[in-house]
Amino acid sequence: MNDYLSNQRKEVDDMKNLLVAQSGGPTAAINATLAGIIQAAQTNINVNNIYGAVNGIQGVLEERFIELKESMSSTFDFNLLSQTPSSALGSCRFVLDAWQKNEEQYKSFINIMRKHDISYFIYIGGNDSMDTVYKLSEYCKAKKVEDIKIIGAPKTIDNDLAEIDHCPGFGSAAKYIAATISELERDISVYKISAITIVEIMGRNAGWLTAAAALSRINGAAGPGLIYLCEKAFSIEKFILDVEEKMKEKSSFIIAVSEGIKDADGNYISDQVQSGLTDAFGHKYISGTGKVLEDIVREKIGCKVRSIELNLMQRCAAHIASETDLNEAKMLGMKALQCAVEGEIGKMSSIKRISSNPYRVEYISVPVDQVANHEKKVPIHLIHENGHDVTEEMIEYLYPLIQGEANTLYENGIPKHIIFDI
Amino acid sequence: MNDYLSNQRKEVDDMKNLLVAQSGGPTAAINATLAGIIQAAQTNINVNNIYGAVNGIQGVLEERFIELKESMSSTFDFNLLSQTPSSALGSCRFVLDAWQKNEEQYKSFINIMRKHDISYFIYIGGNDSMDTVYKLSEYCKAKKVEDIKIIGAPKTIDNDLAEIDHCPGFGSAAKYIAATISELERDISVYKISAITIVEIMGRNAGWLTAAAALSRINGAAGPGLIYLCEKAFSIEKFILDVEEKMKEKSSFIIAVSEGIKDADGNYISDQVQSGLTDAFGHKYISGTGKVLEDIVREKIGCKVRSIELNLMQRCAAHIASETDLNEAKMLGMKALQCAVEGEIGKMSSIKRISSNPYRVEYISVPVDQVANHEKKVPIHLIHENGHDVTEEMIEYLYPLIQGEANTLYENGIPKHIIFDI
Repeated sequence: MNDYLSNQRKEVDDMKNLLVAQSGGPTAAINATLAGIIQAAQTNINVNNIYGAVNGIQGVLEERFIELKESMSSTFDFNLLSQTPSSALGSCRFVLDAWQKNEEQYKSFINIMRKHDISYFIYIGGNDSMDTVYKLSEYCKAKKVEDIKIIGAPKTIDNDLAEIDHCPGFGSAAKYIAATISELERDISVYKISAITIVEIMGRNAGWLTAAAALSRINGAAGPGLIYLCEKAFSIEKFILDVEEKMKEKSSFIIAVSEGIKDADGNYISDQVQSGLTDAFGHKYISGTGKVLEDIVREKIGCKVRSIELNLMQRCAAHIASETDLNEAKMLGMKALQCAVEGEIGKMSSIKRISSNPYRVEYISVPVDQVANHEKKVPIHLIHENGHDVTEEMIEYLYPLIQGEANTLYENGIPKHIIFDI
Repeated sequence: MNDYLSNQRKEVDDMKNLLVAQSGGPTAAINATLAGIIQAAQTNINVNNIYGAVNGIQGVLEERFIELKESMSSTFDFNLLSQTPSSALGSCRFVLDAWQKNEEQYKSFINIMRKHDISYFIYIGGNDSMDTVYKLSEYCKAKKVEDIKIIGAPKTIDNDLAEIDHCPGFGSAAKYIAATISELERDISVYKISAITIVEIMGRNAGWLTAAAALSRINGAAGPGLIYLCEKAFSIEKFILDVEEKMKEKSSFIIAVSEGIKDADGNYISDQVQSGLTDAFGHKYISGTGKVLEDIVREKIGCKVRSIELNLMQRCAAHIASETDLNEAKMLGMKALQCAVEGEIGKMSSIKRISSNPYRVEYISVPVDQVANHEKKVPIHLIHENGHDVTEEMIEYLYPLIQGEANTLYENGIPKHIIFDI
C-alpha cells in the first residue's frame, strides 16, 4: 500500500493547490470562513489554484470542484459571500468509514488530491466534520503521506465544539435569538390579559443558544420569565410551579426552552408527552418541545398560551448576523489556511479568549482529535440555581459574541446573496 | 340626552388637546404612525397637550392616559419609537356596543374627552378599530357633538383594509417574509437529497403576505416552488400533483402557504387538527396549516419534509422593517392629525398610489364607514392561472413597498426599543 501511494507522489513543490469544502448544518457565518480562506490563499505565495468541492467530502470523493481563485476576485464578491447564509458550496452528512475497514475511500481521496495537485485541504464544519479531518489526517500519518495537509475550520450554531472558546456561527444565531426575543416581548406585551409565549430554541444536547435568550434583557427589557436549558433535568411538576410563581409577578411573559430538554432519566420531554391529537391520516400528531409545553400550560394553568419555534431562521438569518461573529469566522478561515501552508497536520483553527472586558481573543490551532465527536455542553454552574435562568457569568461570556452589526448589502429591498453555480 | 351632552360642552376654543390610542394586532410600523401623529401635533398651533391612552379604546374609557408632549421631545425619542415594534401604548380587542344599545359607553367617552379638554381623538388600528372610529363618529353626528373630532389611522400587516392602496405595517412584514424566504432557500439548498419546506404565512382571509414570498426571487433566487393564497380554493389532490410535478424540476424547494387556505366549500384545511376554539371576536382560532400539508406530503409523496411557521416574527421583526413602510406609516399619522384639526369627521387617513414605477403616492382621507368591517382580499386576477403562484402585476404592486432599510439603532448588540411605563 505504501508503495502504491509512493508511486503516485509528486514533488511537494509542485503541489500547491488548495481545496476547501463545507459540511454539516448551515450557519450565517460559514461563508465568512470560506471568504477568509480564499482571501488568505490569494495572498499566500504557497498557494496556486483554489478549488471548492461541492457538497463536502462527498463532493471531494466525486471530484465535483469549482474554481474559486479567479471567480472570487473583488471586495464586492467577498462581502457578498460573507453575508450569504448557509454553505455556498453545499454540504453533506457523509461519514467516512474507518480506513482499516474501507481503505479504498482513503486511497481515492489521496489520488484525487494528487491528480489536482492539491496540497492543502481545509474542511469547514462541526464535530462530525472534524471527525473526517481526523480520520484523513490519521490515515496520512499512518501511510506517511506528507504532501497533503488537512486542516479543519470550525463552525456550528450550537456552540458545542470542544477546544474552542466559542464557535463561529453561534454569535450570529445568538444575536438573532436575543433580538427576536426582545421583539416578541414587545409584541406579547400589548394586551392586558395573561398570556404565555413559549419559544423553542435549537439545541438537542447543548443549551447555549437558549441561554442567549437572556441577552434580550440587555437594554432593559424583562426578557424571558423562565429559561430552561437541556443540560438540567426538566421536571414537568417544577415547570408548572415555576409558571404559576412567575404569573404572580407578571401576567404575560416568554419562556425560552431548548428543544432538547430531558427528564431526570434522560428522555426527551417531546418524546414522552404527546398531545393525543391525531393528524389528517389518524396518525399520532408528533409535536415539538414547545408544543408539548404549550399543551401542559393550557391543561394545567388554563391561560392563553402559544408556542413559537425559531426553526431554521435562527441559523440562517444572516441579515442580523453579528459583526464579531462574521469577523471571527473569517479570521478562523485565514488561520486554517495559515496552519495548512505551515505544514500543521490534523489541526483545527480555534479561538482562545484572553479577556471578556475588554473583549480580546487569540487565534490558535488545536489537535482535531480533541474536537472530533466531543460535545461541549453548558457547564452546570452557568445555569442559575433556580433552574430556570442563567448566571451573570453566562451573560459575560455571551455578551461580546453578539456585538456589532453586519452592515448587510440589500438589493431591491432584500439582502443580496451570492449563489454559486453548483 | 342631547341636553345632558350640551350642558357638558365647553367652548371649542378651549379644547385643543389630542388623545391617541393604538388597537388590534401589533405591527412593525404602528409606532411610526404614533410618532408621526405626535410630531405633527407638536408643530400644529391647534394642539395643546398630547395624551396617549393605554390599551386602546378600553384605556380611553378607563382614563388610563400618559403624557406624550414633553416626554417625547428629541429626535432620538422619535427614532426609537419608530423602530420599536408592536404598540408602545398597548392594544385591546374591545368592541363598542351599538350606541342604541349601550349609550352609557358613548356618554362616558364624551365626558372623558371633555373632562380632559380633548378635541382630537386619533385611533390607530385595523378594520375592527375603524369600526370603533365609525361608531363614535356616528354617535357624535347623531347627538350633534361638534367639539370632538375622531379620526382613524390605518395599520395592519394583513393589508386587507379597503379604501387604501396598501396598509402600513404590511410592507415591513412583506420585507421580512421575502428576506426570510430567500435566506431559507439558501439553507435548504445545501444537501443533494429531495426535501420540501413548507412555510406557513399569516393571513386568515387575505393572502397578501403569502404573495410577498414571491419577492424572494427579486435578486435571482428561485423563490418558492409553489405559492398558495387563501383566496383560491385549495384542493389537496391538486396540491399533491403540483408537488410531484415541481419535484421533476427541482429536488428541494419551498412551498409558501397562507394559514387560511380553504377547500372549495370554504372549510379551513387546518380544521382537520383544530379544536374549534374562537378568539375574542368569535373568529375561528386557526393554526397548523403548514403541519397539515407536511403530513400530506410525508404520507403521499414520502420525501423529507418540514414545515415552518413565521409566526409572530413576521409582524414584529422591526429590525428588518421597510423604510418605505415606516415613512408612509409616519405620514399617515401626520395626515390623520391634519384631518382632525381641519375638522374632518369619521375619516381615516389613507394612501392613494399614483404610479408604481416611479413609485409615487398621495395621502388622502377616506370615509371610515367604507373601511370598517370590510376586508380587501387579493383579487383573483393577481393569482397566477396555474393556481400556485402570483402574477407579474402582483409583483409590481408589492415591489415598492419593501424598498429601503430602516437603519435600525442597535445598543449592546440588539435593536434598541422605547418602552413606555404603562
